[in-house]
Order: sequence, then C-alpha cells, then structure tokens
Amino acid sequence: MILQPEIHNSLRLPSKQSEAGIFATKNTMNAHIIAIGDELLIGQVINTNAAWLGEKLTEIGIHVDKMLVIPDEETAIVDQLEKSCAEASIVIVSGGLGPTKDDITKTGICRFLGSSMVFNEDVYQLILNYLKRQGREPNPLIREHCYFPKETVFLKNNMGTAPGMAYRYKDALIISVPGVPYEMRFIMENEGIELIKALDDGQIILSKTILTAGEFEARLAHRIQDITDAMPAHISIAFLPNINQVRLRLTIRGTDQVSMEKKLNEFVNRIEERLGNQVFGHGKESLSEVVGKLLVKNDLTMSTAESCTGGFLAHKITEIPGSSAYYCGSIISYSNELKMNLLDVKRETLESVGAVSEETVCEMVAGLLEKTGTDIAVAVSGIAGPDGGTAEKPVGTIWLACGNREKTVAKKIILAKDRLKNIEGAAMHALDMLRHFILSEY
Amino acid sequence: MILQPEIHNSLRLPSKQSEAGIFATKNTMNAHIIAIGDELLIGQVINTNAAWLGEKLTEIGIHVDKMLVIPDEETAIVDQLEKSCAEASIVIVSGGLGPTKDDITKTGICRFLGSSMVFNEDVYQLILNYLKRQGREPNPLIREHCYFPKETVFLKNNMGTAPGMAYRYKDALIISVPGVPYEMRFIMENEGIELIKALDDGQIILSKTILTAGEFEARLAHRIQDITDAMPAHISIAFLPNINQVRLRLTIRGTDQVSMEKKLNEFVNRIEERLGNQVFGHGKESLSEVVGKLLVKNDLTMSTAESCTGGFLAHKITEIPGSSAYYCGSIISYSNELKMNLLDVKRETLESVGAVSEETVCEMVAGLLEKTGTDIAVAVSGIAGPDGGTAEKPVGTIWLACGNREKTVAKKIILAKDRLKNIEGAAMHALDMLRHFILSEY
Repeated sequence: MILQPEIHNSLRLPSKQSEAGIFATKNTMNAHIIAIGDELLIGQVINTNAAWLGEKLTEIGIHVDKMLVIPDEETAIVDQLEKSCAEASIVIVSGGLGPTKDDITKTGICRFLGSSMVFNEDVYQLILNYLKRQGREPNPLIREHCYFPKETVFLKNNMGTAPGMAYRYKDALIISVPGVPYEMRFIMENEGIELIKALDDGQIILSKTILTAGEFEARLAHRIQDITDAMPAHISIAFLPNINQVRLRLTIRGTDQVSMEKKLNEFVNRIEERLGNQVFGHGKESLSEVVGKLLVKNDLTMSTAESCTGGFLAHKITEIPGSSAYYCGSIISYSNELKMNLLDVKRETLESVGAVSEETVCEMVAGLLEKTGTDIAVAVSGIAGPDGGTAEKPVGTIWLACGNREKTVAKKIILAKDRLKNIEGAAMHALDMLRHFILSEY
Repeated sequence: MILQPEIHNSLRLPSKQSEAGIFATKNTMNAHIIAIGDELLIGQVINTNAAWLGEKLTEIGIHVDKMLVIPDEETAIVDQLEKSCAEASIVIVSGGLGPTKDDITKTGICRFLGSSMVFNEDVYQLILNYLKRQGREPNPLIREHCYFPKETVFLKNNMGTAPGMAYRYKDALIISVPGVPYEMRFIMENEGIELIKALDDGQIILSKTILTAGEFEARLAHRIQDITDAMPAHISIAFLPNINQVRLRLTIRGTDQVSMEKKLNEFVNRIEERLGNQVFGHGKESLSEVVGKLLVKNDLTMSTAESCTGGFLAHKITEIPGSSAYYCGSIISYSNELKMNLLDVKRETLESVGAVSEETVCEMVAGLLEKTGTDIAVAVSGIAGPDGGTAEKPVGTIWLACGNREKTVAKKIILAKDRLKNIEGAAMHALDMLRHFILSEY
C-alpha cells in the first residue's frame, strides 16, 4: 500500500511549466470537500472532518470553495463527483469506506470513472497483518472489501483497515478517505497533503503562527492594532481563539520566498516584542509541550492534585510523548475524604472555608509535594457545574495554586456555566500558571 | 416582524390533497441546508448549524439530502439557490446576515428572485428597541441593514438584530437565518420549523441507535448479517465506529407510524438479542453515563488508578454531571515510585515482571481499594508510546484490572502505535470492563 513514485506521478496535474496547464487559467488551485454519510445529514454526527480539511488545505494555499454532505447513495456520489470534478482541481471525499454494509464510495467512484473493480492482494495482506497485530480474527467479509477501482493509487492507513485512495480524473485529483476522523487525519497527514502539494502552481504562501495565552482576542487585537494597521496588503492576520489562548496567524502571499520571509519575520517580531511572556510558543506547539520543555530545561519534576478538573489536567500533560521524564503523577481527590486522606488537607479548612478556596488549594500543593517528592506541584479545585454553585461561589469559580518548597502562589478565576468548558478552561489556566511560575522562579 | 397568517399562507407549497401537487411526484419532502461563510471554508469554525438543522428536519420527517458550505460571494449564493431550489422543496440558508457581515445573503436572494430591495420601517423600529433594551447605541449603519427583498416574510429574532426571512420560489420554500447558532436556533424553533411542518406531506422517518462496545465493526456486521439481510428495503442500517465502540443506526421510512415503530423495534430487538451484553445503551448515551447509572443503581462507589492513561479515564468519568455521587478519585501513578508509595505496589513485582503486567495492575487495584475505601477499583498500566516498547511488550500493550474486596479480574489488550489513540482506547476498554464487572458481580 506504499505509494509508488511512478503511480504518484500519474496523479500530477499539468504543471505551470506546461503552456496548456489548467492553472495558467484557473490561476489558483481550488478544492471541494465532500462528506458522505446519512449520519451527517440527519445531524447525528457533526462534520468536523470538513473543518479539519478546510484548515489543512488553506494552510497550503488551496482555496476551498465548497463543502458538501451527501447521502450514502451511489447515484448521489456519482452525480456530485461529476459536478465537483468540473468545478475544482482537488476533490476530497470522506466517508462511505470500511468493512460494512454502507461501504459505497468505492463503487460510486468506480461507476464515475467508468472503471471496473479488481481484487487487490496487497491490501488484503496488509489488512490481515493489521488484524493479526491487533490479535483479531479476520472474517469472510474482508476479502469482499479488497476490491477497488483498477486505477486506485493507495494511501496508507495505519489506523484502520480501509486504505485511502487517489485518482486522477481529467483536470482533477480525487482523494477518498474513510470518515473516521483519526483515520482520515492519518492518511491526509501522511500522504494526502503531500500529494496535493505536489500540484503546486508556483504561488507561494508562507504563514507563521504566534501562540498566546491569558488574554482575550479583543484585548490582544487592541494592543497590537498599530502594528497590524501598518501591515502591507499582501500580509494578513487572523485571530484564532481557543480556551484561554489566542493563535495569531500571519500569512503572506507572493513569489519571492526570501523577501517574503524577511517581511513576515519583521511583523512577527514586532508583535512578539509587544506581547512579551503572553507568547508561549509557535506553530502547532501545545501549551503542555512548552511547559514540558521548560521543565526538562530546568531539570524539574512535577505532580498535580485535581478536584474539579477530574484528571483532565493530568491528561493534557501526559498526552505529550516523553512526559514521564518530568511528570510523576496526580492525586485526583474528587471527594473531600480523599483530599484529607491522600493530600492531608485539614478538616478544619474544608469545614471553615470549603473545598473551593485559596487555603484548600495551597494545602493540596503542600500535601502533594510531601507525598510525591516532586520539585513543583499544581492544584485545582472549583465548581465545574451544572450544580453545586452558590451566590458566593457560582458555577465556574475555580481556585488554582502552584508551588515548590519555597513559595506557593494561588489565584481565583471565574469561568462559564458549561461543565466541560470549565474543566478544560481550568486545566489550561493551570498550565499557563505553571509556565509563568517556572519562568519567574527558575 | 410577527409572521402574518395571510403571508404565511402564501408560503405554502401545493399540499398533497392538490392533484397537481409536486409531492405527488416527489413523494417525499426533501431539504438542502446551505451555510454561507468563508470562516467555515477555511476551517476556522465547525459547521454545527448544519447538524442541528439536520436533526430538527429529520425529526419532523424531512429528508435532508444535501448540506453545503459556500463562500461569502453573491454569485455563489445565487448559483447555489438556483440549483437547490430545483432539487429540493425546502432550502435553508444560514449565515451572511447581520451588521458585521456585508449582508450578502439578502442581496443574493434579491438577485436570485429578480426582485428589488425595499426599506422596512417595522424592522428598523424593532432593531432600535432591541438595542435600547440592551443599553446599546444605534449606529448609522443600521438603517442600511433594514433593506430587504420586497417579498420577504419576516421571522422573529429575539436574540439579535437580523430577522429571519422566508420566501416562496416556484416549488420551494426558502428560509434564511443568521449564522450565529443561538440566533439561528431561536428563529427555527420559534417560527421556522412550524413553517416547514405546514408543508407536511405525511412522510415519516423513524430511527433508533443501538450502542455497542468491545467488538469491531466488521465482526459485528458479520454476526448480524442474516438479520440485516432480512431487512425490507425501507429499513436501512448504518455502522458508525468509534474507539472500542460501534453505533448501529436503524432507519425506517413510511407513512404509518404505528406499523413502522413495530417493524423497527422488531429488528432492533433481534439485533440486541444477538449481541447481548455488548449492547451498552441507546441513542446519545455515553459509556461513562451508562456506567455511572449502573453504579448509582447498585449504590456503589469507585476509584481509579492510572498509569498510561494519565488521567484520561478519570476525565471520561468526571465529565458526566453528578459523577461525584459515585466517583471518589484517582491516583495517577505515572512513575514507579508513586506506584510503590501511593498504591503499595511491591518493588519485587515491578522488578520481576514490570509495571505493565497482570501482577502490577492487580496490586494497583488492591492498593487503591485500601487507600480510598471505595467499593470498586479500576487500574490501567500500559505502554502508550511512541517509545518504551519492547519485542515482548510492544507499544500498545495495556493491562487492565477491575476488582472489589472479593474478586479482581485482569486482562491484556493490544492497541495501536498512536499514543493518543492508545490512551483513549485503554480508557474506553477500562470503562467497558467495569461495566461487565458490575453486570456480573452485582
């Protein structure tokens, strides 16, 4: 299922060197993103694949001008492929693949291409191996699902049994991927995006993303307004807010890479200078990753004590590969008993000022440092909701503390009414508090 | 902006009583959902409106057969309206309205209808009142935004300043709503859905979703193939896989609700009987929710001890509102030291068979029951990757244990190479193991 270079070349569109090349007239490459699935049309599943693909294609300078959702029906697929291949240079189809009854994309593409289905032994063996590695038994249906349109160029799928597929049809490149998000992402990140990049039309798009934490979009925009106002027309800036974070993506278009990079860096530097420590990283780094690097650099270990975040803070830290080098563990004291028994929070504290208080989170930090022996400890206690709020401590009230053996700092934040947003928000605030603590104390 | 009944009637499509009615030939009412917005195409915003609308329309028996996202361009809007009005009885357009956009939808609809824009004093006054109630100053642009195609039937928007709009074009009903989700929802729930219901052609769609865990899509399909093969043409089944779970959605179409429900339940029951305890719930329930209900029903408390899942299992449990009633906490022993210090795992065990072993997870369960005093404990230890694998214990090797004071069960699973997938997979397997433990022991 490894993509063979000679087949890969067969997917190339006419290059800009070719006088008759389509991009000489179309001027820029455009894409349609088609999702197949009744579950999307009836609203049972939200089409997150389209947004993910839209972002990826935009990043490499492809103009997405239509997204579609169509039913699990062969006729609908054939009909839409005809329309999309006439209108777009790149057509990405997700969904309708996989080893069950609703597997319809392959036969739809086959009919559209006027091709025939052939059995592919390589794919069959790869699937058998995949199942074997997972300790699963193959079933008789699997052979049936190894028939593909004979023009198929296969794209590796290490996350599941349905491979990605690519086709060249007239002036368009068709890429078909399974609808399961992590399978789709694997195929696109591994081979799909490269395939599209190879169709490059000569226009260069460079972008750089500055990652900030702890300030709202509108205030950030206001603080750097004089800089963004001074940007020339071929540079644009987008503010992409997320939980307690805003990504600033600067994009420049042109043909001279050296001068473009220089200009882009000039504005990136001016913005970073203005925002100081609010900038925590670049590109696709996560805050957990940045904090992890800081811990490693300073040869520090850490642990966490969580109440309302219920493990989510630990999860954000441990999703980073190699985090076991600096992260020792967490005590999730969801009940007050565990706060006392496992973290030595005093009963008097819980009874007098409650579990959501400065005193409690500071005692959690002290107890945790004692129990785990790590250099730094972080504690969170709050009211995630929907119940448990009071007039004095409404839902969304969160206390955070961060400390070592010399010093502990604490702060209160007030988030929203939504449970999951409060959990995620509290964890992201705690990570940023830890980052500032390391920057100031080490 | 109150919808006047006589205008409302002007929006009616020929009813099924009408001999010349289009639905006598189209047979069922279908809809297109069009979202307008560059922010959707570049993946900055996920199109949740489409899923919401899809669900609402499906509930009232409307067949959504296409969802689209198109750019903020008048030509794209006119072009898509032409196509959609030819193909669908109901066309819902969201986005491109309101004072921060260029009001491109209104001019697009106007051009499409071949109409002209007229100032509407009623809308103007309603907006002024709305702003006054919110204590906001009107700005000079507002008057400009009160021009509408002269055929507009207005739909009330109590959540913002841009009203919904409805039009009758040949055989189609067009409804245009702002893209802001809560404004769109208000308009649709208040008047939009009623408008569509008034077009009713009697076609009903019912669906039921069976939630399963612990079996792969292909094997499930194989196990129930004789049942799905026996389904009549007006019943369809979709397999929707997720991590360690597959949702089976059965859908039936027809006109006689009573007999349809009976037929649907017949197949649902046959499938559930075949799959037994692999079915964990229905509809939109999550596995954590189901496990939580089982714990409450049996008046049990639980805790978790996590290594490789690093808090994700605790997070899945605590994201459920009210989980503090049965969940006491977790010890995340990421390091071996914490496994020994906090969970009393024996040093000899770790040295002889390692942290990823049956012995270790069983000792984690025993230590946890002792430390937390809960009725049930669940433990996970594995190699999430990307590093740390060996020939004997490759990346993806996970040991799980679940126990109470009488009995502890353990099992090994082998997942994939991807760190995040292993973390999520291990947590979902652990939850399902816990479910089976409660079902068999209580």
